[in-house]
Amino acid sequence: MLLTVIYIIAITAEAMTGALSAGRRSMDWFGVTLIACVTALGGGSVRDVLLGHYPLTWVKHPEYLVLTCCAALFTIIIAKWMKHLHSIFLLLDALGLIGFTIIGCQIALQMGQGFVVSAVAGVLTGVSGGILRDILCNDVPLVFRRELYASISFVAVIFYWFCIDFGLSLEITVISTLVFGFSLRCIAIYFGLEMPKFIYKDDDDQSASSKDVS
Amino acid sequence: MLLTVIYIIAITAEAMTGALSAGRRSMDWFGVTLIACVTALGGGSVRDVLLGHYPLTWVKHPEYLVLTCCAALFTIIIAKWMKHLHSIFLLLDALGLIGFTIIGCQIALQMGQGFVVSAVAGVLTGVSGGILRDILCNDVPLVFRRELYASISFVAVIFYWFCIDFGLSLEITVISTLVFGFSLRCIAIYFGLEMPKFIYKDDDDQSASSKDVS
Amino acid sequence: MLLTVIYIIAITAEAMTGALSAGRRSMDWFGVTLIACVTALGGGSVRDVLLGHYPLTWVKHPEYLVLTCCAALFTIIIAKWMKHLHSIFLLLDALGLIGFTIIGCQIALQMGQGFVVSAVAGVLTGVSGGILRDILCNDVPLVFRRELYASISFVAVIFYWFCIDFGLSLEITVISTLVFGFSLRCIAIYFGLEMPKFIYKDDDDQSASSKDVS
Repeated sequence: MLLTVIYIIAITAEAMTGALSAGRRSMDWFGVTLIACVTALGGGSVRDVLLGHYPLTWVKHPEYLVLTCCAALFTIIIAKWMKHLHSIFLLLDALGLIGFTIIGCQIALQMGQGFVVSAVAGVLTGVSGGILRDILCNDVPLVFRRELYASISFVAVIFYWFCIDFGLSLEITVISTLVFGFSLRCIAIYFGLEMPKFIYKDDDDQSASSKDVS
Repeated sequence: MLLTVIYIIAITAEAMTGALSAGRRSMDWFGVTLIACVTALGGGSVRDVLLGHYPLTWVKHPEYLVLTCCAALFTIIIAKWMKHLHSIFLLLDALGLIGFTIIGCQIALQMGQGFVVSAVAGVLTGVSGGILRDILCNDVPLVFRRELYASISFVAVIFYWFCIDFGLSLEITVISTLVFGFSLRCIAIYFGLEMPKFIYKDDDDQSASSKDVS
Repeated sequence: MLLTVIYIIAITAEAMTGALSAGRRSMDWFGVTLIACVTALGGGSVRDVLLGHYPLTWVKHPEYLVLTCCAALFTIIIAKWMKHLHSIFLLLDALGLIGFTIIGCQIALQMGQGFVVSAVAGVLTGVSGGILRDILCNDVPLVFRRELYASISFVAVIFYWFCIDFGLSLEITVISTLVFGFSLRCIAIYFGLEMPKFIYKDDDDQSASSKDVS
């Protein structure tokens, strides 16, 4: 129940960030709507296709699809005022990241998967909507370069797993994972924490692979 | 039967546009063939994977796959004369768009889906082949920026739905949707009709996301 | 048994090439790990999703996923010395290409598919991990432009098919296909053999589609 509320908040927030990305690339309204849907529902779809968990969420509940389309069109209307809402968005996005992660993890556990696969399912649900958005907008996915994001999703999975293992009830586990992951993400944003980067230069290959963009 | 003929025309035309896109990026013959297949058969594959509708069309009918490969190689041979065929291609592509849309919509209806999911299935079948082509060629998908395209696919779905709801027989519905959608697309091309674009500038994010291409 | 050993060598080698690609784009450790996993396991996942062959390999054997993550992190540590290992990598990658191809082909045959679909399954398993890696790194897939690669995968499938058709036992078929394909790839690298390229210039379209990168 709590998760459904968080899920609805999360897909709305993600749809709006997708719509803004599409707007930065000057796409038409259809492109904006499609990228909003992919950002909001793509993570769960990737998870369900990879796990063979049919029907997908938006096929079973087309109302979520309608909701993301409305959120996309609403974003076009209120775009002028979006800059002032930047910090609210970061918080909603953080809530969505942890919410998606918990949902993805739970679905894999319900399918009888073990720790590794549920961790992957959780992280994939959390981050792959944003990755698909960046691929469609022809960017290198931001998730690989900005402050702690996917790694927080992964830490939340571990926390969730420990709570379950510790014998806590499902409600307490979900709520404490939400609080824990959300706080961690807020700390990461506030202090600008980043993962260490791996920088590799290899002259001959580099020139070949950057030919298109220079 | 009519739909099968249109489907074969459509995948041939789409395969040829895919091959030309690959040629613009100076790909080798294998890349040309693969991009032709993805452009022609990718839309249906995306739909079938998302709906869990197995086996995919080209797995059940590998002859379609052979046809698209032949179309790709044929395109390499006749590339010199392609410029003069530009308008014929636009018409075949328009026919394909509507044909794909109807087929996608019908498959979702046969699976017992409602309006929202069949509309998505129809539009996805129509446009996602071209989106995959543009992702593989490292372009921002054209479908989000050129004249009315995906939106015509969506309008065709609504028209189709109304015809069915009105009690028209399947043949008449298919034929009238084809005529309606095809005319609409021709009008859009002729007058250069475009959807309104959503242009959003956000200085700090913009600089971050365009770092790769400048 | 032999195939399992080759599969493990292949996913390790592919994971390391994926990690290096991510390093060229200065991604953080999470991005490096994810791209390594996609490169190593993405080919098989694409094949299994398209054929509806569930559960996917890494869902059934999560230990392969752990192995690719370890290979990615190991690559970060030994990156300084990687340049000296360049030729070993090319050989391991060649081995992996043929190993992946044979495995993909066998799985399709076990599912009762005919020649065309098993050939596609074999080639897809061999090359689509690398294609996904290049899409996530925002490159035009290298596989479409460098020396004979995907075509060797295809020739290996034909060779494999002839051996089976000729009545050879499975072990002899696998071993001789491996030797044949591996030699072919080594010859292609040594002599820099390339497929003919298809170069198509179309002034008005070209300017439209290259707008983003210039």
